[in-house]
Amino acid sequence: MGNSFGKSFRITTFGESHGAAIGAIIDGCPAGLAIDEYFVQSELDRRKPGQSKITTQRKEDDQFKILSGVFEGRSTGTPIAIVIENQDQRSKDYSHIAESFRPSHADYTYEMKYGVRDYRGGGRSSARETAARVAAGAIAKLLLKKSGVVISAFVSQVGEIKAPDYKLLDLSKTEDNIVRCPDSATAERMIALIDQVRLQRDTIGGIVTGVIKNAPVGLGEPVFDKLHAALGYAMLGINAVKGFEYGSGFEGIKLRGSQHNDEFYKEGDRVRTRTNHSGGVQGGISNGEDIYFNVAFKPVATIMQDQQSVDKSGNEVIVSGKGRHDPCVVPRAVPIVEAMAALVMADFLLLNKISSV
Amino acid sequence: MGNSFGKSFRITTFGESHGAAIGAIIDGCPAGLAIDEYFVQSELDRRKPGQSKITTQRKEDDQFKILSGVFEGRSTGTPIAIVIENQDQRSKDYSHIAESFRPSHADYTYEMKYGVRDYRGGGRSSARETAARVAAGAIAKLLLKKSGVVISAFVSQVGEIKAPDYKLLDLSKTEDNIVRCPDSATAERMIALIDQVRLQRDTIGGIVTGVIKNAPVGLGEPVFDKLHAALGYAMLGINAVKGFEYGSGFEGIKLRGSQHNDEFYKEGDRVRTRTNHSGGVQGGISNGEDIYFNVAFKPVATIMQDQQSVDKSGNEVIVSGKGRHDPCVVPRAVPIVEAMAALVMADFLLLNKISSV
Amino acid sequence: MGNSFGKSFRITTFGESHGAAIGAIIDGCPAGLAIDEYFVQSELDRRKPGQSKITTQRKEDDQFKILSGVFEGRSTGTPIAIVIENQDQRSKDYSHIAESFRPSHADYTYEMKYGVRDYRGGGRSSARETAARVAAGAIAKLLLKKSGVVISAFVSQVGEIKAPDYKLLDLSKTEDNIVRCPDSATAERMIALIDQVRLQRDTIGGIVTGVIKNAPVGLGEPVFDKLHAALGYAMLGINAVKGFEYGSGFEGIKLRGSQHNDEFYKEGDRVRTRTNHSGGVQGGISNGEDIYFNVAFKPVATIMQDQQSVDKSGNEVIVSGKGRHDPCVVPRAVPIVEAMAALVMADFLLLNKISSV
Amino acid sequence: MGNSFGKSFRITTFGESHGAAIGAIIDGCPAGLAIDEYFVQSELDRRKPGQSKITTQRKEDDQFKILSGVFEGRSTGTPIAIVIENQDQRSKDYSHIAESFRPSHADYTYEMKYGVRDYRGGGRSSARETAARVAAGAIAKLLLKKSGVVISAFVSQVGEIKAPDYKLLDLSKTEDNIVRCPDSATAERMIALIDQVRLQRDTIGGIVTGVIKNAPVGLGEPVFDKLHAALGYAMLGINAVKGFEYGSGFEGIKLRGSQHNDEFYKEGDRVRTRTNHSGGVQGGISNGEDIYFNVAFKPVATIMQDQQSVDKSGNEVIVSGKGRHDPCVVPRAVPIVEAMAALVMADFLLLNKISSV
Repeated sequence: MGNSFGKSFRITTFGESHGAAIGAIIDGCPAGLAIDEYFVQSELDRRKPGQSKITTQRKEDDQFKILSGVFEGRSTGTPIAIVIENQDQRSKDYSHIAESFRPSHADYTYEMKYGVRDYRGGGRSSARETAARVAAGAIAKLLLKKSGVVISAFVSQVGEIKAPDYKLLDLSKTEDNIVRCPDSATAERMIALIDQVRLQRDTIGGIVTGVIKNAPVGLGEPVFDKLHAALGYAMLGINAVKGFEYGSGFEGIKLRGSQHNDEFYKEGDRVRTRTNHSGGVQGGISNGEDIYFNVAFKPVATIMQDQQSVDKSGNEVIVSGKGRHDPCVVPRAVPIVEAMAALVMADFLLLNKISSV
Repeated sequence: MGNSFGKSFRITTFGESHGAAIGAIIDGCPAGLAIDEYFVQSELDRRKPGQSKITTQRKEDDQFKILSGVFEGRSTGTPIAIVIENQDQRSKDYSHIAESFRPSHADYTYEMKYGVRDYRGGGRSSARETAARVAAGAIAKLLLKKSGVVISAFVSQVGEIKAPDYKLLDLSKTEDNIVRCPDSATAERMIALIDQVRLQRDTIGGIVTGVIKNAPVGLGEPVFDKLHAALGYAMLGINAVKGFEYGSGFEGIKLRGSQHNDEFYKEGDRVRTRTNHSGGVQGGISNGEDIYFNVAFKPVATIMQDQQSVDKSGNEVIVSGKGRHDPCVVPRAVPIVEAMAALVMADFLLLNKISSV
Repeated sequence: MGNSFGKSFRITTFGESHGAAIGAIIDGCPAGLAIDEYFVQSELDRRKPGQSKITTQRKEDDQFKILSGVFEGRSTGTPIAIVIENQDQRSKDYSHIAESFRPSHADYTYEMKYGVRDYRGGGRSSARETAARVAAGAIAKLLLKKSGVVISAFVSQVGEIKAPDYKLLDLSKTEDNIVRCPDSATAERMIALIDQVRLQRDTIGGIVTGVIKNAPVGLGEPVFDKLHAALGYAMLGINAVKGFEYGSGFEGIKLRGSQHNDEFYKEGDRVRTRTNHSGGVQGGISNGEDIYFNVAFKPVATIMQDQQSVDKSGNEVIVSGKGRHDPCVVPRAVPIVEAMAALVMADFLLLNKISSV
Repeated sequence: MGNSFGKSFRITTFGESHGAAIGAIIDGCPAGLAIDEYFVQSELDRRKPGQSKITTQRKEDDQFKILSGVFEGRSTGTPIAIVIENQDQRSKDYSHIAESFRPSHADYTYEMKYGVRDYRGGGRSSARETAARVAAGAIAKLLLKKSGVVISAFVSQVGEIKAPDYKLLDLSKTEDNIVRCPDSATAERMIALIDQVRLQRDTIGGIVTGVIKNAPVGLGEPVFDKLHAALGYAMLGINAVKGFEYGSGFEGIKLRGSQHNDEFYKEGDRVRTRTNHSGGVQGGISNGEDIYFNVAFKPVATIMQDQQSVDKSGNEVIVSGKGRHDPCVVPRAVPIVEAMAALVMADFLLLNKISSV
């Protein structure tokens, strides 16, 4: 339980970091959708390790295979099974993880909850699991594309360095640099900071901002499955996420209602709002304006420094990161945020088809 | 769809602001739980309108009835149906809402999604719906109490006025003042600000902080149903909420990993962490430390001022709030935040009983 | 858990036989459906006790109230809460049930599972619970009617007395007699048998046959939610049901494949089958032919005779039925079978709207 | 949707007959269960084609791989992904299926519902899909074994040839002959009949009887998820099933209540029933007696004879079975019935742990 996401466009993921494979089953993808496998691979490539000097130097190819649900290039309405084999399964020395609990990792809680855990590379709690979400999210994006919905995300903050408001940015430039911030000047400063932190054998956090354009009016299911609640749930389920806000977010609380309210006006045939503090969602339902939100990622827990901890037998021990890890997770988190947003939107797009007679 | 919450301790709510009644069905409350109806009523009383000068002056009694699932004072394992009749159903002039869309309300989106809406008092999108959650949450609290879990919430910010960190506060004092901030000096300033905003016929936002103490280790279901993801989903489903963060939250992104990581140590028989940036949750599972989180509420959308809008026919119109509304929602949101947190925790408490053989 | 049924058109029921009320919440009824309350009441009247000499002489009015989800006569897309108050709540002598376990009733199993039970009138296990299903099913019927789907059921067997095949009957005559068998000669024999059994202070079983006409092609969701599997699940959840078969059913096993297969042919623009051993369902999906099925009901467990049993303390005791009970359940089960079939069909009708792009 | 089964012990299956692979994800298997892979393989071997002269002569090895969720021989509480590669993917002439609709198969309904289908070998509607259920069911059996629950099934009828009542049989002899009927004399007659039907290029139906011993009292969730309703739903989801009955079943309707009721008595510390027309289930909850049920399978639709049909363009055509098919499905259905029963029982075993405080 807890490994499925979505109601009508529903994914179930599986797999541990160093097991045989990870993957996802999509149940509910409508039949007849053209499945562009090049696109799915390109999304996986955006997430994979080893892309640049500011991400982990691990090499993983993340080649996926579709085992079912697609015939002659189109979805058939049956479950789409996607598998990504783990290549890096060679036997390593995991004794430091097997017996000890790394600070701010899931080692201790998994051990206590389940009494047994696959400690290799973090097992199920590894961010490697998100590759399956990215592959499934790519298929959700293909479905959304047919309805004109465009989902994008970018790095808007690293440490204290912030990018300008998304409305001032050209989001088509996100992939132009290795930190995935569409403002090149800010991007340079972010890269320099991450590089500096990396040399200090430390890590740092950041924010990924998501923007959804051209969503039809009417997506979201009150009262518990409000569009923004589903987005928040989706984002908070990504490893290392500590917060979610949409529209005016935490800053909005300082405004007066008279400043915060989004007045309606008519633009041609369309009802629009002059401001968009609502972030495109009112009463939990999309209103046709841009949907935008921020996702806060903590600094990566694995650092190349000695830290105090405890082992399974209750002895106090020193643990230290080994291997190749990301000094900052947000550049590689961009496609993950997009994938989870796509899964939410695809689900609501389908559900909305049965909202009224 | 969208009106149920939880997996094993599952509620389904119903009801419109000015319909016959609102209510909730709890399916999955274990048999044999003593149902303290006085406690349920006291929780409803904390949420009800008309409590003080800084809340709406509407009078609603919110008397509940349990229709099923309780026999001789104990839950029977069958669905517990709770109904709260609406007393304020008198025929009013709703023409300003029936035809026009109030800014930053759900009028427009409901109209577009469903093609029909109960416009009286906001219908299903009214915060009145949360009374049903509070009643159900009270029963979840009774279940949690048996396991020693204590859930509390308080107002930690109104506009720019912030209370000290929760660890410095005596949370038993939350009910000592009408704004529900346990720090009396801060509370006075908050009350003054809300009163001033009210006189300006305006509204203001704020933050409610939730704190869960004594949760057992092991609650939360990776990967999508992480404990904090479920809490975030629960909170973002409350009316007017714009953001959620837990532990170090949005501020944590500025820290280095070496500062942010929570080192483990041994305290007697127990494994603990020296700091708690994790907010009591690691890898989506509770680790036994305090679980704490912030919930951001926007300024109430109903203001006693003229605003530009559009009506159903597409004409531009002026709308203005009528009646008695809250100038700031957070004091009355405290029991709602607690209720939703209790529902999440009760659900995971039950699910955790079947995590291992 | 276990008190909800359906995925997109989803009901949750509650209530005990002698508690305050029973009822159902429908979550997922599309907005804009005209809710004909007279029709809902007429369906409840078909199920209610006291209709004739061959049903229980208890008088219950089963007046329902809709508490939410309907505005100005139309569904709003929000949950429809239906409540039926229990009128017969007067304090009775239940000591024979409170302490003893009636044979072939749910007393013993509820006591063992939950440790506590509302023994009055059978509590949650009473067939009274099905009134909520009939009310919800009536609304499902209204939705189906818009798509032309017609659901009917009738008594096809009582004890050893069988009606002719449904294709030979005029199903519009089902309500013409008190046993609800459209063949008047068979009906007379059935009535005589039930009356005789009643005088013997005994009970007898029977079969209700369901027939669904004009279902569109394409309803049903492979692989687990095949249309007939959902129908079977729905029927087996009705009190006293012991078996379900559709199409050729148990008799079909004796045929050769060459006899059993339904050959296709073209009738105008439509693909049809010459025979219909498939019962209108192939591969779990409706094929446009009549869907028909049989539901077997055991003899009512409450008999006016002494029976051996055991009480809560483990003593062997004699129990005997008291009050007014049905000598044969099938006449009143007809609207229940129809209601459950309607719930299944409404659910699949909605789900099928999102089967393909 | 429709490809998941179970609530707490939940499987999701995928795969087409001639795609790359089929498989299942189990979400909710408790951590710490020893996974005996030899046992899983032995269950798959019981289902695989080519076992004897009365089953299809196709050779499929059905070797499975576990991709996740098992570490050092034990379940970890994370999803268990099981994959079975399809070996028989060679390019064949499928033109007779691609364009035409085989009578009493799913070709026509899939084509109409989805607009596209993987016609090779029946695609998703092929009984090959059940191999994934057998593998998952084997793991459910391992979980049940810890609680002493024993699940078995056998062939009780082929055409008109019936085995004696299960209580008169030694169920340990089921595997002693190729038709899987524990009564050797009946088995011989069944085998002769199937062989004769096969030579006539025809097929025949039959019944598989399931028996569950040692189930604890208390399994099953009223009101919709009654134990027998879940069993019926599970069985009716197996290909070719036309009916389900438990306990006294369809025959029970002919009895009087005074004959049918199961009187209670005390056997040592245990409450038992003298007869078991209830089939071990009362009020939808197990009462500790044997749970037994019958599952009716129609004659296999693929016959080696010419049949009338229609093609996609609406032309009337002749189709005939090709390749190697089962003349009677019941011998190979035995492990499938057991697997589905095990999935139901494992689910309720877990759910029952949270029934009371």
